[in-house]
This record gives sequence, structure tokens and C-alpha cells, in this order.
Amino acid sequence: MNIVIIGAGNLATHLSKALFEANYSIVQIFSKTEESARMLAQKLNCNYTTNIADIITTADVYIYAVKDSVLHLLIEDLAITSALHIHTAGSISINIFKHKYKNYGVLYPLQTFSKSKAVDFKSIPMFIEGSNEAVSSILESIAKKTSDKIYHINSEQRMKLHLAAVFTCNFTNYMYTIGEDIMTEAGLDFDVLKPLINETANKVQSLSPKKAQTGPAVRFDENVINKHLAMLEKNSKIKNLYLELSNLIFENTKKNS
Amino acid sequence: MNIVIIGAGNLATHLSKALFEANYSIVQIFSKTEESARMLAQKLNCNYTTNIADIITTADVYIYAVKDSVLHLLIEDLAITSALHIHTAGSISINIFKHKYKNYGVLYPLQTFSKSKAVDFKSIPMFIEGSNEAVSSILESIAKKTSDKIYHINSEQRMKLHLAAVFTCNFTNYMYTIGEDIMTEAGLDFDVLKPLINETANKVQSLSPKKAQTGPAVRFDENVINKHLAMLEKNSKIKNLYLELSNLIFENTKKNS
Repeated sequence: MNIVIIGAGNLATHLSKALFEANYSIVQIFSKTEESARMLAQKLNCNYTTNIADIITTADVYIYAVKDSVLHLLIEDLAITSALHIHTAGSISINIFKHKYKNYGVLYPLQTFSKSKAVDFKSIPMFIEGSNEAVSSILESIAKKTSDKIYHINSEQRMKLHLAAVFTCNFTNYMYTIGEDIMTEAGLDFDVLKPLINETANKVQSLSPKKAQTGPAVRFDENVINKHLAMLEKNSKIKNLYLELSNLIFENTKKNS
Repeated sequence: MNIVIIGAGNLATHLSKALFEANYSIVQIFSKTEESARMLAQKLNCNYTTNIADIITTADVYIYAVKDSVLHLLIEDLAITSALHIHTAGSISINIFKHKYKNYGVLYPLQTFSKSKAVDFKSIPMFIEGSNEAVSSILESIAKKTSDKIYHINSEQRMKLHLAAVFTCNFTNYMYTIGEDIMTEAGLDFDVLKPLINETANKVQSLSPKKAQTGPAVRFDENVINKHLAMLEKNSKIKNLYLELSNLIFENTKKNS
């Protein structure tokens, strides 16, 4: 099974390395960013191209790991009807391929990827969806070789999953960013927050987040909250965010108690 | 050194257990909530009282681990001038004791405590502040017996630290809560988000959160963001929060690139 990887960003890099390590034959990397394409192709010992017209047309599988906004453009520019086409986007329906292909699907690994940070792919949940039974079973066999956790979900569920991931990962990371900014301004080292960050994530592995909730907002402790708001006086957007989140946590606590 | 613990909540429970395991002699637990007081006293094999007038007056150290809003009331009700008085609150100045006592201080463990979840106290950073050198060194010796990480910081820094902790812990946990709600509504299991939650926390142990930021907000991918906002149509507060956080992440990315 020969695979072409369309994309050379964070997800393309980690996914193609996992496939390579599972002994899949990756024959080409396509990316408009030459440096990314070259670097990834080097790691996988395969060819690369930055030109759509030069994409190999005889591969068995085409995996698209690109920005959502360019995915449909790439699909329009390619016409390799005999192959299996797979995208990896959380918020794009499987039907993006429907008008052109018969065999297509989605392979969505739920994780946050940065090129500079290695991940254990085996522990990453893989969500798959195929255009037909045969495709689903091919997707399942590919997913199983790279991960221990395979789930079949439809496009609508995957979109909700992606939305939940934005809150639990992307927005969470932004909370860390605000924390780092506050520490830097106070002349304190962000490092001292790291055990707290770890334990906060660790707690919800066994407790429901609703039960794990702590902090001044739980009882809307005005004494503390007002002190915190005063410290944020210079940054009105973060101050508003603090108050809004405190109100939401307080409402949630009342609702659940 | 005989210690009285004022409070029997999450922090009082974990801190007094750590002190007990470090062979400190805890002679009494005070809490207005009889069940909490009795349960904690049982674990520590000591007396308890729910009556302020019955608090032992001959102990060497009084540790206050109570809600911020009642701390000053308790201090007013007690008058044990020879002892060392220690509070454990992030956002309360050491000076809350100043008008009554000579020897006082703060012992602030930076962690999120729930009674039902064990923690490794040794890895918790302890922030200490004493009213004089002698008190600081007593605090240091107490802190060192329970934790490997001791820091001397003043009340102003501790307040900033607490504010940073609210973002990185309390608000982060609320992001997990929203994630859980979205999953439940979609008929999906919150469990599948757990590896992502872990990796998000894990990433910032070695990468700056600014560098670790991923997701549709980084490039303000309107295609994805609009789909997500549409899914949140029924919940206007969470929808607004999504948009606000996406705007803040996008602004931050532009500022840092």
C-alpha cells in the first residue's frame, strides 16, 4: 500500500512518522512550503514536491493533513479516482470528497501536535469514518497499526469532538499563557506552576471536572475575586475574562449542588 | 511542637496529613462542620472541637486553613499571644495577624486539593513568608519536612501567584467541564479527551505555552470557528466565551510572531 501525504505541518509530520514506523510505504510528501516538505521527506526517506502537478498519481492512498481552508482547493486540483482519499480534519465532513470519489474517509487523531515535541502515537485516540464498509475496514487496519484506541464516529460527532477539544486543549493552553504572563510580570518563574498544571489535568483522569472544580469562583468569594480583578485593572480584556469565567463557574456550581 | 489545625476542608485535610506523616504532633482540629472535623481528627488520631471557646490555648502553632472570608473573624475570636500563627491563603496578606501577634506567617502550598484525590505533597511548591527571621526559619523547617520545593515570597507576589493559579488551574478545569458537557450532549465519552488533556499539560512542562498553542484560533480559521459557533447557538454564554477566547489567542499569536 503506497501512501502520499498531502501536507507537512504538525499533524502531517507526526502522523506520517507513525505510519512510517508501522512499516507503511510513504512514497511522497506534498507541501507548498518547500522547507517543511524537504525536512519531512528526509525523515521518511521519500520524495517530495511543492508542485501539485507533480503529485504521484499511482499511489493507493492519499492522506490530506492540511489547513481546513485549503483542503477543498487541493481536492479540486487532484483527480485520482482509483485511490482511497483520507482527510484528517476534525471539523470537515466526510462528504467533502463525495462529488469526486467513491472510496474516501476520515482518520482523525485527537491530539495536540507541535513539531518540536515527540508524542506517543499509540495512546492517541483515532476516530475513523469510511464512505463504505470496505473503506472503514482499511481505515481500521491503518489506525490499529498506529494507535491502540480506535473509534468509529460520524462527521457530526467528530465536529462536536473537535469543539470539545478546542476547549480542553487550545483554550486550556491559553489559560496557561495568561498564567505565564502574570508570573513574568510579578518576577516569578512559570516553572512553579507546572506541578499545579499537571495535577489539574491528572485530577480529571479519575474525577469528573465538575467534582474537581476548586478556587474562589466556586463560592464566588468576592473578597478574593475583587483583589484579583484589581490586579488585572491594566488589562481590561483579561479582567473581563476573569469575571466572566468566575460567573460561569459559580452558576455551574449552583446548578450541580 | 504541638499544632492546632483551624479548618477541616480540602487544604486542611491534605496539609495536616502531610504534617502528621512528617511526625508533627497535631493536637486538635477545629471546624464548625462537625462531620469534617471528626473525620479528619480520626485520621490524625487527635481531638476535635466545633466550638471556638474550646480551642486548646497551649499549642505552639496554629495553622489556619479556612475560607478567606472567615479567616479574620477567627483571628478576632482567638487570643493566643505566645504562639506562632500561620495562614495558608494565597490572596491574604501576612499583615492580617499584625495587630494581634508578634510571631506569624504564611505557608501556601500551590496545589488543587479535593478530599477524594490523594496528592504527592513532596512535589508541591511551598511558598513561605514570616513576620521575622526566626519565624521564617521555623516555617522553612516545617515546609521542608513536607515538600521538596520551598520558596520565600512576599504577600504581593503570593497574590499574583494565586491569580496565575486561578487561570492555570481553576479556569482550566472549567474548560474541561465545558468539554465534558459538549461530549455528553453529543453522546460521546469524556474519557476519549483524557489523553489530549494530559498531553496539553505535559507539553508546557517543556515548551512555553505561547509556543505550544495550536487550534483554529491561532490563524483565526473562520471556516472552523463559524462551524463551532453554530454548534454553540443554543448556549449564548459559552458561544460568547468561545469567540472571546479565539480573538484573544489570535491577537496573542500576532503579537508573538
